Formats: sequence, structure tokens, C-alpha cells
Amino acid sequence: MSDVTQANLEALEVGQTAFVERTFDEAAVRAFAELSGDFNPVHLDADFAATTRFGRPIVHGLLTASLISTVVGTRLPGLGSIYVSQSLRFRAPVHVGDTVRAEAEVTEVQRQRRRVVLSTRCLVGDKVVITGEAVMWVPPATEEE
Amino acid sequence: MSDVTQANLEALEVGQTAFVERTFDEAAVRAFAELSGDFNPVHLDADFAATTRFGRPIVHGLLTASLISTVVGTRLPGLGSIYVSQSLRFRAPVHVGDTVRAEAEVTEVQRQRRRVVLSTRCLVGDKVVITGEAVMWVPPATEEE
Repeated sequence: MSDVTQANLEALEVGQTAFVERTFDEAAVRAFAELSGDFNPVHLDADFAATTRFGRPIVHGLLTASLISTVVGTRLPGLGSIYVSQSLRFRAPVHVGDTVRAEAEVTEVQRQRRRVVLSTRCLVGDKVVITGEAVMWVPPATEEE
Repeated sequence: MSDVTQANLEALEVGQTAFVERTFDEAAVRAFAELSGDFNPVHLDADFAATTRFGRPIVHGLLTASLISTVVGTRLPGLGSIYVSQSLRFRAPVHVGDTVRAEAEVTEVQRQRRRVVLSTRCLVGDKVVITGEAVMWVPPATEEE
């Protein structure tokens, strides 16, 4: 699958999958703190994080989840598709420096409503860190170009 | 309510509210694209966006949603609290340059499980752009310092 895909409702089928991978380093976590205003020290202060159950600084949950947005918005269904909803269950911490793999799998295609349901999850190695579901709306071809 | 609050399960009650506000300009959207890898042109390319139903570039849904994370992670319940889950329903677009207000309201306190359920939403002016629900876990005081 190429890096970027144009969303096309007709080409979508249950069982199709896509993924992206990315490493979130300290600079990324700091940039997300600036963007969101979330300067919680568990993300930014190693001394503070050492006093928590996590031991080391952890990546903001919604920064990790942003990779799911990247998969569905640029790969499957891809460019042009619009987020209807996303559920996120945070199952394990992502530590600063971890490489995250975000996966999406088509579980339902609602052709009349032009909607696609995808099972979404993020992993660090073999460990599942986020699970959830995305619903995307795919525009008619006339709106894509 | 001060800018930052230490999460304290005993002080939480149904009906408490908190909010944060933030304006997402082009630089913020570009920074989020770099962070997430989501370079969908509907966010970054005014000419492309003009051909879509949105007319103008829109803010990534998960960038808008990051403000919810900021409310629950730094205000209510606040610092030390950990995300269990977040649901997001994207109801209307947020255009680049819009000021977003993210609100959280406590709807349930599960003292035995140390969990808090909050109704969460984002608004641009009077328009509701995201609705959803957050569940947070609040650590015992011994872990907070």
C-alpha cells in the first residue's frame, strides 16, 4: 500500500488493513504539550514521572492516538475521508522514545450512508496500548478533486 | 478554578465543571501534521480545501480533541489522573483560526474503582463541534507527590 491513498468507497471491503509507525521522542511530546496546553509533568518531568506507577515520562494518550487519525485520514479509507467518530481505550502506557504502530481494519462498509467502520489499535512491539473504533464518511468522487 | 489542579478523588462531585480555550492557527495545524504524519491537504492546502464541503482548511479532529485531554489532565480531575477511555463524535468542522472551548463535567464518581466519568465537549462560539465521554483513574494521594 502506497504512502497516501485517495478514499474511494467502491474499492473498500471488509478485512482491508493499513498501518503507520512513528517514534515519539521528547521533542514530540514537548511539541504536543505546547500545542494542546497539557503540561502535565507525567509527560515532561522525569523526576516527577519516577514517583508515579509509570517510572518514566509517558506520551500523551491523544498524541499516540493521532497516529490512528493518520492511518484513517491518509491510508484507509484515505484522503478526502472525514472523521465521524473515534473511540479510544487506553490499555497501557507509551513511554517517551517508544515506537508506536497504529493499525486500522475495515469491519463494515455502509455504502448507502457512505460510511466505513474500522477497528483501530496502537501497539508498542507486541503490546496493545490503545484499542477502539473509527467511523469515517467517504465523499462522492466529485468532491475529491 | 486555578490553571492547574491536583487530582483528588475525595474532592470530586457530580456536576463540577472545568474548561480551557485555545485558538488553532495555521502554525498549530502544521505542527500537528508534522507530529502525527497526517498531511491530509484538507488541513494544509487552502486551494484543495476550497474544493471540499468545508471551503477552507480545517483543524485535525484529534488536535481539537487534544484540548479535552488538557481539561481532564490538568483541571478536572487534574494532575496525576490517568486516561482510561475517551469517545469522540465529530459534529462540525473547526476551521483554522477558530477558537475552541473544551468543557468537562463530572457525571459519575466511582469511588471504589477510583474512577471518574465526565461528559466532554468542544465548542466554537455556540456551536458544538465535538461531543463525547472521558473516563479517568485518580491515583491514591501517596502516588501523587
